[in-house]
Amino acid sequence: MSQLIDFYFDFYSPYGYFASYKIDEIAARHGRTVNWHPILLGPAFKAVGSKPLLEIPLIGEYSAHDFKRTARLEGVPFIMPPTFPGATLAAARAFYWANEIDSEKAKILAKAFYKAAFAEGRDLFDLKVVAEVTTQIGFNADEMLAAIQTDAIKNKLKQAVQDSLDKGVFGSPFIIIDGEKFWGNDRLTQVDQWLATGGW
Amino acid sequence: MSQLIDFYFDFYSPYGYFASYKIDEIAARHGRTVNWHPILLGPAFKAVGSKPLLEIPLIGEYSAHDFKRTARLEGVPFIMPPTFPGATLAAARAFYWANEIDSEKAKILAKAFYKAAFAEGRDLFDLKVVAEVTTQIGFNADEMLAAIQTDAIKNKLKQAVQDSLDKGVFGSPFIIIDGEKFWGNDRLTQVDQWLATGGW
Repeated sequence: MSQLIDFYFDFYSPYGYFASYKIDEIAARHGRTVNWHPILLGPAFKAVGSKPLLEIPLIGEYSAHDFKRTARLEGVPFIMPPTFPGATLAAARAFYWANEIDSEKAKILAKAFYKAAFAEGRDLFDLKVVAEVTTQIGFNADEMLAAIQTDAIKNKLKQAVQDSLDKGVFGSPFIIIDGEKFWGNDRLTQVDQWLATGGW
Repeated sequence: MSQLIDFYFDFYSPYGYFASYKIDEIAARHGRTVNWHPILLGPAFKAVGSKPLLEIPLIGEYSAHDFKRTARLEGVPFIMPPTFPGATLAAARAFYWANEIDSEKAKILAKAFYKAAFAEGRDLFDLKVVAEVTTQIGFNADEMLAAIQTDAIKNKLKQAVQDSLDKGVFGSPFIIIDGEKFWGNDRLTQVDQWLATGGW
């Protein structure tokens, strides 16, 4: 048993956003630490033959409503960012850059990206937004902007996406506890129970 | 506000099976009655461009595992029926036939079909199984077998499937409370909360 649990998410996943408020606290309650892995869902959607929820007939309408209903139930703000959906490359790369400097602060950065997108409705495709959030958390935004153009950081994200596919991750949020997989914000209750009981 | 809430499900939906144990009790707790609507998900899958869970790469494996894990968590037996997946026409038609005779007993029949399939792993494509379950609940199986061949009963199921599509139903289980839609066994907690509070 590892002390770590793995949390995969896409920065433009509303259900990942909801989970981002809770996952660290759930893990901490059971003496675990969360390894955050921002990924891009595009390749997973290709693997399972799916696409972003809002683009699917019927499910899209339902989901748009469910995002808001879930936000009200969980007591968190919710706005759709203007460029939704899309591949949030810059934010994900910025996370992997920050993670090498300070992994705890990198999680705070991830939460701040999520809040910028879904609590404030800001556009994560705007590099200015990514830079502002980076500064706000106390990282050097100019260094970040240079770093995310390097192959080293680009490859970090590529590798993270590939690792997630290799582990069978196909959605966001996706949590793996000692090899046990949980898909979706709805599964956080089970994640909590699993950590509490060691499984059933 | 209607006193009724609508419960849509496919007889070969494991998550519908799990919900079938709980939905009446949840509704009754809040003075509501459940209108059961067996449907066939084929047309909905066509509408949303999806297919049965087990046939989807990655999601299929995850789901097969999740069915068993959910069953253990909810404390109900679970076996995959031998002909899964498929369109359970006979069982669904038998329900609509029984529903005209005794709607309360028809719900008991629906629960018994679910248990035959997923608690006992019996084949709902075998008319003998459908007939045996029908007899067991106290209906006349010969009358049922004759009735499900008639246009009148065939059309009842057709109409139910069409109605479900018109209402935006695209999965199983699917619950509608005063126009508010809830998709999935995972949403039963919210169904309970919605009925308790009148919504949020």
